[in-house]
Amino acid sequence: MIEQRIQTHRYENGLVLVVETLPETRAVACEFLIPAGSAFDPPGRNGTANLLSDMIVRGAGAYDARQLADRFDFLGVQFGTHAGTAHMWLSFATLSDRLMDVLPLCADVILRPHFPEKDFAAGKESVAQSLRAIEEDPLEKLTVELRRHALPEPWSKPSEGTLEDLPRITLDDVREHYRRHVRPAGTIVGVAGRIEFERIRDALGELLAGWSGPPEERIRARWDGPRVVHLPHASHQTHIAVAFEAVPYADPQHYDAWMVASVLGGGSSSRLFTEVRERRGLCYSVYASLVCGKGFGRIVVYTGTTADRAQETLDVMWAEFRRLGEPPDPAAGRGVSEHELRRSKARVKSAMIMQQELAGARASAIARDWSHLGRVRTADEIRRAVDAVSAESIHHYIRQHPFANPTVVTIGPEPLEVPR
Amino acid sequence: MIEQRIQTHRYENGLVLVVETLPETRAVACEFLIPAGSAFDPPGRNGTANLLSDMIVRGAGAYDARQLADRFDFLGVQFGTHAGTAHMWLSFATLSDRLMDVLPLCADVILRPHFPEKDFAAGKESVAQSLRAIEEDPLEKLTVELRRHALPEPWSKPSEGTLEDLPRITLDDVREHYRRHVRPAGTIVGVAGRIEFERIRDALGELLAGWSGPPEERIRARWDGPRVVHLPHASHQTHIAVAFEAVPYADPQHYDAWMVASVLGGGSSSRLFTEVRERRGLCYSVYASLVCGKGFGRIVVYTGTTADRAQETLDVMWAEFRRLGEPPDPAAGRGVSEHELRRSKARVKSAMIMQQELAGARASAIARDWSHLGRVRTADEIRRAVDAVSAESIHHYIRQHPFANPTVVTIGPEPLEVPR
Repeated sequence: MIEQRIQTHRYENGLVLVVETLPETRAVACEFLIPAGSAFDPPGRNGTANLLSDMIVRGAGAYDARQLADRFDFLGVQFGTHAGTAHMWLSFATLSDRLMDVLPLCADVILRPHFPEKDFAAGKESVAQSLRAIEEDPLEKLTVELRRHALPEPWSKPSEGTLEDLPRITLDDVREHYRRHVRPAGTIVGVAGRIEFERIRDALGELLAGWSGPPEERIRARWDGPRVVHLPHASHQTHIAVAFEAVPYADPQHYDAWMVASVLGGGSSSRLFTEVRERRGLCYSVYASLVCGKGFGRIVVYTGTTADRAQETLDVMWAEFRRLGEPPDPAAGRGVSEHELRRSKARVKSAMIMQQELAGARASAIARDWSHLGRVRTADEIRRAVDAVSAESIHHYIRQHPFANPTVVTIGPEPLEVPR
Repeated sequence: MIEQRIQTHRYENGLVLVVETLPETRAVACEFLIPAGSAFDPPGRNGTANLLSDMIVRGAGAYDARQLADRFDFLGVQFGTHAGTAHMWLSFATLSDRLMDVLPLCADVILRPHFPEKDFAAGKESVAQSLRAIEEDPLEKLTVELRRHALPEPWSKPSEGTLEDLPRITLDDVREHYRRHVRPAGTIVGVAGRIEFERIRDALGELLAGWSGPPEERIRARWDGPRVVHLPHASHQTHIAVAFEAVPYADPQHYDAWMVASVLGGGSSSRLFTEVRERRGLCYSVYASLVCGKGFGRIVVYTGTTADRAQETLDVMWAEFRRLGEPPDPAAGRGVSEHELRRSKARVKSAMIMQQELAGARASAIARDWSHLGRVRTADEIRRAVDAVSAESIHHYIRQHPFANPTVVTIGPEPLEVPR
């Protein structure tokens, strides 16, 4: 069993602090999940959260933009902000003995950003640059488009924004997004490293004491169901993404879904890797993973191949989806065998133990758990839940959530025939 | 000071083992650097080393390809091989208590690969897939082309190979590459984690006892000097790479070169990040780093921007190169100021301390040190050398290695005017 020290605190203003003490590292990692992601972008202004995440570090408190970057670099802090769909993230990693110097800077960024007029054009232009780069990168584009079609609204909105909406967004929109959404209720701070819980709890309490705002907003998600979408792209390659509905993070069957994704496309002995890449050389990379948001889950599969072998690749993938869903007959490769289930369990459990030591991975994991579950799972709880998955529970899961009616997005010269 | 336990052993057959014990992690990471990289690809057969790195894991010892992947996944091992220019790499990470189960599999792969005829077509096809993907990814293509033009031969050869040569390579070529180059002389094994030196030394000694081969080959490098190359690409983006000659890894001025690269384009307060991205919004990402191979060094700078702002971007970068090389006048931003040097030192030293705990980073670092220097530097030695860099030593360095006559590679719709 892994010894874990996880402690939490809810401040009066609603802010939640989740801390895991890792006594054997000199590092500390910290993530602020602020409920100001792109899901809250105003209609016709998709990209507001992303612009906010750029502008919010261009000067804060006593520092202008340049002085702030200077301070972070001087403290040896790897600091960044970015817009996700649910949250705007503010995260950093540094040495534990610097934590108390970095937190006041975070408080400045969160409570006292300058939003300087003179930097807005440059901020907008650098966001535009990143959006144009996505347009020209088929794999990035595929990821954005799969989200758009496979996820419920508003989680489907591109967290980066769009080139169409960007020109319309004003600095006042950014300030308004800040005022409405950057607030303690719904904000989670995950910290992991060699730290004393009481010390960080008290320091954050003092630094963010004046922070207030409206209660957390409820999001009503809406999904129109799966779609098949082809995006024409003059190229010799076709990129393929497939997403199947799965249970959400908080569902007791979450672990079944996780193992299904792992058997299908995790590791170098997975079904897809073996059949699509190793046996047939149809692609260089193919994998499946379980993607979870608030209230939804998806098993997503990605691959890319030459256009003239794309149809064959899709067909081979489909055959594997089918075989996994058939009544178990391990000799014929039908259903999930005890052997491959044991292998998948061994794989994810080892990875978990190795991540258990990494401050960055732990800060993310505990903040994410709190965001989805309102509590933090221990490694021991996860291990027991993984161990409890059986070939039977997996087949039960697949019967309830069959590999059928996925969202399929392809980018390439020609559309493909999606098997039914 | 960081306490470090680094131990080395040279076996009779020439193999060198370098071990760093990290008592506070449960993980272990291991890298085999075998002198069988693409630098040794036969003429007209560029890609042989890459194909070898694919074929060498398709069955070895008592296991066929599938059983081998199965074993690695069961042991929770993240295992991979790849071809670099000097070396073929075989690396893995796992939990320390599994190390003794993984090493025999590595010995199988190194000493007893099957090279099955029936898998060769698929292996070749999956390499072809990865090469075609590079052709369509401007940033990857830029990296390959910068190496080709900025580095001395044979380090300039694409370690992935080329689509032109690939069809010519036979399984016999791969076997021959294996026979000639996969040998103990010149092979370095770097291991870091919670391990006992004596135990791994004895285990490896036994497992690789029968391994023999010719002495290490000397490489004679040849470089024709800098070039300006434009690769036309129908796109709205232009990607830019610039490489300046720098001292090699083993040179006493290595640390000056490192700090120059860091001041120029490391971190969010670097010259390039501030001027090109933050002030002008010309790009989303711009950075400089020091790249070192055997006997050479380069300071390389990458950025990407919209085609219509590419010339301006290049000009702004050039102005920064010039300002760094001018007689110091910090108020005017000329030369390197004490302040930015202190900041760069703080940044790299913090990063170093954080990497000091990571098994994977340490296994790489100690193997790399041995490969370049024939010894391993302690963190303390590196820190002292970084501290010894002064504004004076940097200016001395820049006078000797001015920002002049770089290799410039651009990919985009139009060539640029390179300032002289």
